[in-house]
Amino acid sequence: MWSDMASKLVSKLFRSSLLTQAAPPPSSKLLLLQGRCGVLAGTAARLSSSGGPPERISRYPVPYRKNLPYDIVELMEEVEAKGGFLPNVFKVLSHRPAEFRAFFAYYNELMNKDTGNMTKADRELIVVATSIHNRCLYCVVSHSALHRIYSKKPTVADQVIVNYKNAELSPRELAMLDFAMAVCRCDTITEEHFRSLEEVGFDREDAWDIAAIAAFFAMSNRLAHLTDMRPNLEFYNMGRVPRDKHKEKAEDQH
Amino acid sequence: MWSDMASKLVSKLFRSSLLTQAAPPPSSKLLLLQGRCGVLAGTAARLSSSGGPPERISRYPVPYRKNLPYDIVELMEEVEAKGGFLPNVFKVLSHRPAEFRAFFAYYNELMNKDTGNMTKADRELIVVATSIHNRCLYCVVSHSALHRIYSKKPTVADQVIVNYKNAELSPRELAMLDFAMAVCRCDTITEEHFRSLEEVGFDREDAWDIAAIAAFFAMSNRLAHLTDMRPNLEFYNMGRVPRDKHKEKAEDQH
Amino acid sequence: MWSDMASKLVSKLFRSSLLTQAAPPPSSKLLLLQGRCGVLAGTAARLSSSGGPPERISRYPVPYRKNLPYDIVELMEEVEAKGGFLPNVFKVLSHRPAEFRAFFAYYNELMNKDTGNMTKADRELIVVATSIHNRCLYCVVSHSALHRIYSKKPTVADQVIVNYKNAELSPRELAMLDFAMAVCRCDTITEEHFRSLEEVGFDREDAWDIAAIAAFFAMSNRLAHLTDMRPNLEFYNMGRVPRDKHKEKAEDQH
Amino acid sequence: MWSDMASKLVSKLFRSSLLTQAAPPPSSKLLLLQGRCGVLAGTAARLSSSGGPPERISRYPVPYRKNLPYDIVELMEEVEAKGGFLPNVFKVLSHRPAEFRAFFAYYNELMNKDTGNMTKADRELIVVATSIHNRCLYCVVSHSALHRIYSKKPTVADQVIVNYKNAELSPRELAMLDFAMAVCRCDTITEEHFRSLEEVGFDREDAWDIAAIAAFFAMSNRLAHLTDMRPNLEFYNMGRVPRDKHKEKAEDQH
Amino acid sequence: MWSDMASKLVSKLFRSSLLTQAAPPPSSKLLLLQGRCGVLAGTAARLSSSGGPPERISRYPVPYRKNLPYDIVELMEEVEAKGGFLPNVFKVLSHRPAEFRAFFAYYNELMNKDTGNMTKADRELIVVATSIHNRCLYCVVSHSALHRIYSKKPTVADQVIVNYKNAELSPRELAMLDFAMAVCRCDTITEEHFRSLEEVGFDREDAWDIAAIAAFFAMSNRLAHLTDMRPNLEFYNMGRVPRDKHKEKAEDQH
Amino acid sequence: MWSDMASKLVSKLFRSSLLTQAAPPPSSKLLLLQGRCGVLAGTAARLSSSGGPPERISRYPVPYRKNLPYDIVELMEEVEAKGGFLPNVFKVLSHRPAEFRAFFAYYNELMNKDTGNMTKADRELIVVATSIHNRCLYCVVSHSALHRIYSKKPTVADQVIVNYKNAELSPRELAMLDFAMAVCRCDTITEEHFRSLEEVGFDREDAWDIAAIAAFFAMSNRLAHLTDMRPNLEFYNMGRVPRDKHKEKAEDQH
Repeated sequence: MWSDMASKLVSKLFRSSLLTQAAPPPSSKLLLLQGRCGVLAGTAARLSSSGGPPERISRYPVPYRKNLPYDIVELMEEVEAKGGFLPNVFKVLSHRPAEFRAFFAYYNELMNKDTGNMTKADRELIVVATSIHNRCLYCVVSHSALHRIYSKKPTVADQVIVNYKNAELSPRELAMLDFAMAVCRCDTITEEHFRSLEEVGFDREDAWDIAAIAAFFAMSNRLAHLTDMRPNLEFYNMGRVPRDKHKEKAEDQH
Repeated sequence: MWSDMASKLVSKLFRSSLLTQAAPPPSSKLLLLQGRCGVLAGTAARLSSSGGPPERISRYPVPYRKNLPYDIVELMEEVEAKGGFLPNVFKVLSHRPAEFRAFFAYYNELMNKDTGNMTKADRELIVVATSIHNRCLYCVVSHSALHRIYSKKPTVADQVIVNYKNAELSPRELAMLDFAMAVCRCDTITEEHFRSLEEVGFDREDAWDIAAIAAFFAMSNRLAHLTDMRPNLEFYNMGRVPRDKHKEKAEDQH
Repeated sequence: MWSDMASKLVSKLFRSSLLTQAAPPPSSKLLLLQGRCGVLAGTAARLSSSGGPPERISRYPVPYRKNLPYDIVELMEEVEAKGGFLPNVFKVLSHRPAEFRAFFAYYNELMNKDTGNMTKADRELIVVATSIHNRCLYCVVSHSALHRIYSKKPTVADQVIVNYKNAELSPRELAMLDFAMAVCRCDTITEEHFRSLEEVGFDREDAWDIAAIAAFFAMSNRLAHLTDMRPNLEFYNMGRVPRDKHKEKAEDQH
Repeated sequence: MWSDMASKLVSKLFRSSLLTQAAPPPSSKLLLLQGRCGVLAGTAARLSSSGGPPERISRYPVPYRKNLPYDIVELMEEVEAKGGFLPNVFKVLSHRPAEFRAFFAYYNELMNKDTGNMTKADRELIVVATSIHNRCLYCVVSHSALHRIYSKKPTVADQVIVNYKNAELSPRELAMLDFAMAVCRCDTITEEHFRSLEEVGFDREDAWDIAAIAAFFAMSNRLAHLTDMRPNLEFYNMGRVPRDKHKEKAEDQH
Repeated sequence: MWSDMASKLVSKLFRSSLLTQAAPPPSSKLLLLQGRCGVLAGTAARLSSSGGPPERISRYPVPYRKNLPYDIVELMEEVEAKGGFLPNVFKVLSHRPAEFRAFFAYYNELMNKDTGNMTKADRELIVVATSIHNRCLYCVVSHSALHRIYSKKPTVADQVIVNYKNAELSPRELAMLDFAMAVCRCDTITEEHFRSLEEVGFDREDAWDIAAIAAFFAMSNRLAHLTDMRPNLEFYNMGRVPRDKHKEKAEDQH
Repeated sequence: MWSDMASKLVSKLFRSSLLTQAAPPPSSKLLLLQGRCGVLAGTAARLSSSGGPPERISRYPVPYRKNLPYDIVELMEEVEAKGGFLPNVFKVLSHRPAEFRAFFAYYNELMNKDTGNMTKADRELIVVATSIHNRCLYCVVSHSALHRIYSKKPTVADQVIVNYKNAELSPRELAMLDFAMAVCRCDTITEEHFRSLEEVGFDREDAWDIAAIAAFFAMSNRLAHLTDMRPNLEFYNMGRVPRDKHKEKAEDQH
């Protein structure tokens, strides 16, 4: 029967696939930039290793690292080493290693780049605006931190959280968020949407980027709601206060 | 500066990562089951190769296969060979190869399995119910076809499309869709949701499956809206009419 | 007292009125076109006369024909003879004979004609678009079947069910549905609505037709929800597959 | 061809049907009770026959009576003679005589009776509550007048117009309106709805009455929006002030 | 500690403040115009002093006048003397004297004047339109009465209650209500709103008036919901029937 | 004529009233606590007096202090002296002095007290939860700062801004916000609401406090939208970082 055959085939293929293999080559780590933001903001206190009881960060069990596949542990360690703390999304999603890999591969592809007309700060702003619409605590708190870091504007994310319509945004940013919100609400996208983007300088590839980010966080927000994912305390204040110039210089020399 | 360094590092890592490498081992294909449904339903007419002008299936350019990375072509050919036609989602998303890989890796992980208390038909039903909420033409038409095939119930998907609340569903299926819809609407998920699932026999891992599918298609539906993705004509009638017993037997012997 | 007097008068008048009289002249039947669609589509299997228990088609009792007024039975027999099966709406609404007569008189006046700029297919499309908004199983399933028959377009109704905004519609059809949906949602109708219709060639009488159909099905959808009216199985596949030319010709000769 | 044949047949049947015949028997008039309410309230000033320009009561042309079919004129005259003025809905809908007949036949069947557990005042209250939800000027103003007349409670309709949830209603009336509003909103009706009605003494036939009235006015409200139907001035004050006892007695003697 | 100190200071200041002092000078009464409307409309029957049990006008206790501060009693007596009855909002809010004073000071500042381009009737119309949106029984019933008095148009408020979009309003009034409703819904106000107002002759100070009234009644409506505030019976019919000319003249001579 | 007479009388009374008099006694200042929060957080840099162009804080003109009535200036100076900066709401609303007085009198009565079962932190939390629903930038930013100060919990307000349903709140706080949100949305308040409050220890006077705060900020939020009121920069970071113990002590000694 085709159905059984297919199941076995899928299973076999998937076990051996590049996405799930047990021992990835050393270089195959996803370096996630938010890992290092803590260092930058000088707030990388390891609050989760404090003396009190560990804070609950997920409704689902968070695996011990020793029980996780090697490639996932290696990724976590790199992120933690560079960023000063490990964002809870890594811990929470490691409950499902295969989904973890697909999630972060997708995430990395959409967020960690400055291509086309889209800066990293732009990308974070889309996440903030759509995630507040979806009332996602984890994504709003962590990505507004990242926006503060990337944009060096400490209050814009807070304004967008309340109401992007009257935040201190350029017409370009406003058009970007209008389109992101149309995708976020699952509006039927029409040529009119693309025209509005073109008026402020975004081409169709930028439109794909904006929409794909809004779409990806439509998924992420819902996974955060499922797991009741809690943001690391570090995120709340990250990027709010300008760092001491001297201290910053010292850190850069490391 | 950390920022430049990080960008380069990510870029280097990602280029060499298992997700993007140019020549995957022969076995590393994602066998997508819907590829073969056409054969089963006996409707695998290759409409796209008809004499008329090619139908537009995306708002974005669809790459020629010769221009696509080898692993993506190989996957497409396998799906097409087995299913009789290539679902348009493969063509449309190949516009962005790296995102294509992450998308189908994730898709495969969530949809192509019978694990826990969740059958493949259950998974498709979730996609139908949430995608109609999001008014996604591609996902509703293609996944209601898959539900008809897997469930062997030719009218339930049509009922769910109109109104899952009065469709011919078991209490278990109704509870499953109630939860999927809560995730689809981005409701705040509470312990009460899990209790409702437990009352009909779903445990917390099933809940994750249900929510992750609803979340993944929250993303997919929005990508389909972005690209104005059109379903293959084959999907509309697939699984509606019982196959001829004799013919079915002959096909199974292949 | 006026009130008692009025009650008696109304009662007397209504008993003898042309709408309720016991023996209508032989010609006074409402020929409902959907009755014959089944024959045309070649799917008129009498599923309800199978060996199994009769399917429940209404939350309310469905009268035996022998207990129904003669004019209603005569209408049912004619519809059934010509269409190959009796749509369940006739059975379900016969629970209230006087309302049955008014309902079908109104229905017939609005739906069974090709007048002005409105074809029968246009009328059915309005029913599909507004009934899916109202999540009415019976009307969506039965009238999408009728649309497939009249329009000879087997996929458009399915597209409209998901999202009329990106279905394969002409600008004229889109404007027609935009107006129908404004009526369906009970928007305040303004001159601007009429102007939009005029731009695609609909005059004020067409506007009345469109609105009256949307309004009538606002009622019908709600009656279907009240009674939990279930569509005949025949409707699901009707008009999906082109009929055999030879067979069609033979039928036309009857 | 079946289609042409059917059209002709329907056309022939319908022309000769009892619903459209040119000369109905003298007794076949629909006596609509609201026609006489004006007399009762003592406000039957013929404002439309004043010296000023006639008020516009419809967006569509209102036919001269001499151009209307005899049965419709006869009905209008009877209503006007008894009620002191002709409610504008008769004038506005006479633009389409065949639809006029079906509309008032249906209306009469649902509204002009005291059957089951439903009084005429109950029926009017349903119309008020659902029509304000639909923001229908004509139906709210005219049926709140009728409710004041039938219920002899001059303020309840005004309260229901603002907010039926905190109006001075009995639990029975509140449950009735809760159900009517569920139908009005096109909610999926479940057994739970019927149980709530049974708790206050309504059986399933009463439920049908309530729902059918809500459904019929779902249609009526939309027709009123289409035509921009304006209420007669008489309705605004009708039933607000108790009549002079002596005067009332004199009128009853006519 | 600053916090304790501040509390004490505030407390001291506030006790002695002009808003709360025990013995205001004789002239410091808020003359509320609605107090006299009853007289004008000739409907000032003292229903609350009838023989039956007192109607419940609030969910909270209504203080005896003898227990109220002198300035509040004085204000009530003046309003009652001039208007023929005391609107229930005075009684209900006197449960909290300090809030009573701030409420009526604010109310008086916004409502009891004919300044800029805003008449008193305009102000009442804003209250009617926004209060029906908020389903506030007290404010709709009492302020539609005041609108009838000020505007001398007995049906416009009733039309606005149902649907201001198709009420008999001037373009100027319609623009005024569109802006008031934007404020009522808490839309983000933009320059576009001000431009729409300017097109019909309202300047920025008028815009403030419109918005401040809509904002103040956003508060009032919610206080009325909290207390289940009931309108005086007098309000329902006030201003509906033109007064006798002779009687009116006599009253003006007082 | 009564109308002119009334206008003059109101005008005369109001000019001489305690609310508007030109020279209030020295003690009649409203000490607003947020004025001093800046000091506590150590962020009281006078940004508006920087060298750059003054930031725009209102869509309406902000009066020079020399042009403001003396009592308002005196209040502003006291708030500024104690708090280190003057919250922009004082500047923006001084455009209308009489409304300014009523607004702050009301505000002070509701917010600046620890009475019943309601702490100052509770009151601020209500403002945060309802103001984010209304998307009011000024109120969210300033009152989340005040909540951080009063509650000494630096992250709870941020959580409530995103989603109070899954914030780290006690059942008591959650019930308080559920009720505040019901008022905020203008739900019809029922006895069931009071029962839910009583279950966590709030009595009817507390309910009034909660509702009155939600109602007052329903007004405030709308005034902030009208004026496009911008929060002082000081508010964004206020109360986020624990003060240096030594420094705090030193400040308290001033």
